[in-house]
Amino acid sequence: MTTETTPASTTSWNGWGDPALAKDLPLAVRALLPTILGRIRRPEPPTALADVVVAASALTEQDRAGLISIVGDDALHSDDETRIRHSGGRSTPDLLRLRQTHQAVPDAVVSPGDHDEVLRVLGFSSEHDIAVIPFGGGTSVVGALAPERGGHRAVISLDLRRLSGLLHFDEISGEARFLAGTTGPEAERLLTAHGFELGHFPQSFLYATLGGFASARSSGQNSAGNGRFDTMVTALRVATPTGEIALGGAPGSAAGPDLMRLFLGAEGILGVITELSVRVHPLPETRRYEGWTFPDFERGADALRLVAQLATGPTVIRLSDEAETGIGLAQHGRVGKALAKGCSAVTVFEGDAASVAERHERTARVLTGAGGRPTGPASAEEWARGRFGAPYLRDALLDHGAFCETLETAATWADLPRLKAAVTDAIRSGFGEHGSKSLIMCHISHIYPTGAALYFTIIGNLRGEVLDEWNRIKAGVNDAILAHGGTISHHHGVGRDHAPWFSREVGEGGIRLLRAVKDELDPSGIMNPGALLPAVARARS
Amino acid sequence: MTTETTPASTTSWNGWGDPALAKDLPLAVRALLPTILGRIRRPEPPTALADVVVAASALTEQDRAGLISIVGDDALHSDDETRIRHSGGRSTPDLLRLRQTHQAVPDAVVSPGDHDEVLRVLGFSSEHDIAVIPFGGGTSVVGALAPERGGHRAVISLDLRRLSGLLHFDEISGEARFLAGTTGPEAERLLTAHGFELGHFPQSFLYATLGGFASARSSGQNSAGNGRFDTMVTALRVATPTGEIALGGAPGSAAGPDLMRLFLGAEGILGVITELSVRVHPLPETRRYEGWTFPDFERGADALRLVAQLATGPTVIRLSDEAETGIGLAQHGRVGKALAKGCSAVTVFEGDAASVAERHERTARVLTGAGGRPTGPASAEEWARGRFGAPYLRDALLDHGAFCETLETAATWADLPRLKAAVTDAIRSGFGEHGSKSLIMCHISHIYPTGAALYFTIIGNLRGEVLDEWNRIKAGVNDAILAHGGTISHHHGVGRDHAPWFSREVGEGGIRLLRAVKDELDPSGIMNPGALLPAVARARS
Repeated sequence: MTTETTPASTTSWNGWGDPALAKDLPLAVRALLPTILGRIRRPEPPTALADVVVAASALTEQDRAGLISIVGDDALHSDDETRIRHSGGRSTPDLLRLRQTHQAVPDAVVSPGDHDEVLRVLGFSSEHDIAVIPFGGGTSVVGALAPERGGHRAVISLDLRRLSGLLHFDEISGEARFLAGTTGPEAERLLTAHGFELGHFPQSFLYATLGGFASARSSGQNSAGNGRFDTMVTALRVATPTGEIALGGAPGSAAGPDLMRLFLGAEGILGVITELSVRVHPLPETRRYEGWTFPDFERGADALRLVAQLATGPTVIRLSDEAETGIGLAQHGRVGKALAKGCSAVTVFEGDAASVAERHERTARVLTGAGGRPTGPASAEEWARGRFGAPYLRDALLDHGAFCETLETAATWADLPRLKAAVTDAIRSGFGEHGSKSLIMCHISHIYPTGAALYFTIIGNLRGEVLDEWNRIKAGVNDAILAHGGTISHHHGVGRDHAPWFSREVGEGGIRLLRAVKDELDPSGIMNPGALLPAVARARS
Repeated sequence: MTTETTPASTTSWNGWGDPALAKDLPLAVRALLPTILGRIRRPEPPTALADVVVAASALTEQDRAGLISIVGDDALHSDDETRIRHSGGRSTPDLLRLRQTHQAVPDAVVSPGDHDEVLRVLGFSSEHDIAVIPFGGGTSVVGALAPERGGHRAVISLDLRRLSGLLHFDEISGEARFLAGTTGPEAERLLTAHGFELGHFPQSFLYATLGGFASARSSGQNSAGNGRFDTMVTALRVATPTGEIALGGAPGSAAGPDLMRLFLGAEGILGVITELSVRVHPLPETRRYEGWTFPDFERGADALRLVAQLATGPTVIRLSDEAETGIGLAQHGRVGKALAKGCSAVTVFEGDAASVAERHERTARVLTGAGGRPTGPASAEEWARGRFGAPYLRDALLDHGAFCETLETAATWADLPRLKAAVTDAIRSGFGEHGSKSLIMCHISHIYPTGAALYFTIIGNLRGEVLDEWNRIKAGVNDAILAHGGTISHHHGVGRDHAPWFSREVGEGGIRLLRAVKDELDPSGIMNPGALLPAVARARS
């Protein structure tokens, strides 16, 4: 368990990840942009950190004294930089906001050191009408971390990264219990010492916490082999404004509804996950990478469907559409004649040598039978090397005045083709309404027996009030998703950005259920107000 | 969709299943009983159906008229036989109760014909202070169907078997939407016409409904290959006293908590599942059966753990302990010297020929490596033939004056050995306190990467007030389960019998969550009062 009480500040305060890894656009992409988007104009440079203007903290001296009495005075942070660093996540709207001079920030950042401190901070905040935004790695891309007061007197960001460490490791059962603020890399480091891994690698992996993975129902790139994060969680400990909840334990229980599931995906509106047990597995002995090409997306998607339905066993499988395949080439500056047309796919197999060989052989048989052709390991290896690097490219594009964002959904295999077409149309016509061109790339990122996830990357050229224009385009996309059988999110979550569409997706009945649970655990409505549900501030009963 | 409005009455009214299949104890077992249990005394013969005494219905003429206005007069049943047939499930306590003269029964049985009728019956009952016990196949073994009024004026059994049929079949996605009263065999018949199966085969399969499988979080014998029933469900439509809820749809959603899960395992306390979508798969081309023997249970359990953790892919895998292995032999009258010692296991592989061959080979490699020895297909084939027949044996034992019941739990692999020992001790000492002997057999019935389910079959000799004595023994067993990391149920559910231990398992926090949801959907507390939660009757707000 770590002991420092200052939230990590080695990451970029207004861009993605490690500032040392930020880089300018590759020349090839820079040359390509005008062709695709027309003339783009370099925007005003971002405001420097020292020039950002934030409002004075709304916390009173009594508030501060009360919080300090719980966490200690080195765990309450009121300086501008720390508040700015906890003002949101890393969606493109977040990044554009962080480039501005005036920024909305939480009134303080509190870094509790253990479960009991979390519990007491929530109790104190509930009594004193202070909203609480749980903060893990800070990588939300759906506005789940916005410092919304929701009618309360003030709002604090609750940085959970001091709750880090491995509490228990059970080699026989393949289970590990962690403090929920443990980051992805730290969890893997601790497990590696036992010869095990969690194997959950979303793009946020390097920064996000296990509690964040659980709260947002994260899916990693190895989900075909290792499952979604919510399927890995076997037990939870949660601090709420009205007390502790501990759920889970024995596998395969039929003892009532699986109430633990209420907290997986709750994004901090019910309380704070402080500990969790997860399924782990031995470190893979070997990895096999293989790239594939398909004549078109339809045949590629059919092949991935068969892989999922026949459970042939890849650890990773992804299929890019024609646009993404083409750009992928340009981006990496390779010619690769064999790949120039059609759609490329990536497979990775992890495990012991015999299992990898068998699963590869079965999968290859299915992919080949469905019209795929293997292209060797290079493209898959390259994908694996660059897997955490893509967000840096977005910062570089924004620097050059191009708009870049990603969005995602999932649907049944039967609905997938129409959904992909409808989302593509909505993006294109949305940009078109602003007189802008757009480049739309898509890949199948996660597969299930009954359907798959579609992940879109969009580069466009917005010239006016970029945030307003994008919000209008995104609303049209979200409408199209719900109209064509998609879910409003496969793994980004709901946050504040998707909340209106989440309400439509689960209907009045679903909202009633969630509201009833929230009213029970958080009667004064302080927990992440405005995420998932509209904020309702209530005097504590 | 079926059109008859009379609940099925071809099953035994006071025993298991089809009366034509009932049979006396095999001679070998009859000879063995005194050796194992000491002298047993044949009990009084059961009361004949015509001699059973039930109270007059508490429904008023106005109640009857109101219900008839919703479902029609041929769908409201007030005759004694129909009420007796809906008075409970098929636990041993149920069977002993059904042998008595005075029986508690619902005040009427209502058989709605569609979702809207269910919705209106629940609304009417809520307004008129009538408790409602949802009734599918009637196979509960945990008291989930007891006609408890819970402080209300009357209680009706809501027989859902008219809601039968396939609403939609999606071959591409491998999904089927059913009315929830469809029985297991009817669902399989409808899917077979499309070349598909659901592949969910719990012991209740022949009688239970899909809605019952969902409501009780059922697990089938093919769960190693096909998963638990709750993992098959992709969407639900639910009628509650306060309106309809529809949830689910796209696979792999991260749009908030998976609220559908609240109804999987709710056992009718929140509402009635009227429709559900489930994952289905092509009918297996081939099946491969293979029996195994292990030197002892510990080594066998280790082998099954490796099969689960390495995902070698059996469709069925079960391991009997030494006692069950020995009795299995005696029961079938075979000598089978090779099997006389140690523990026997059963594996079945289903799928296309290539997949079956591969998964068999992988699994056999692991089982052999862990000390197992294949014994050919005979024992596995015999298990498959007899898989739905065991409950008939229980009736025959009861007829002879022996007590027979089953119970089950699950735990992590690490906890499993101590849990098995503790449960065995609790059973043995429980019977011992009544001066009785017991025969305790156990098998691992379902496996997961992190743990497994233990299924116990108990034959004993209770001489006094059998129900009281058994309740005392069972309470001790349940205490032992919770004290040793087990869940109070892996697949039988909670009902009324396990409710106090369910409360302890999920804690005050879990109960608060469930109560909050119930109060929202069923504010007057009419839905299955006393199941899962203590009954609370409230005036409708």
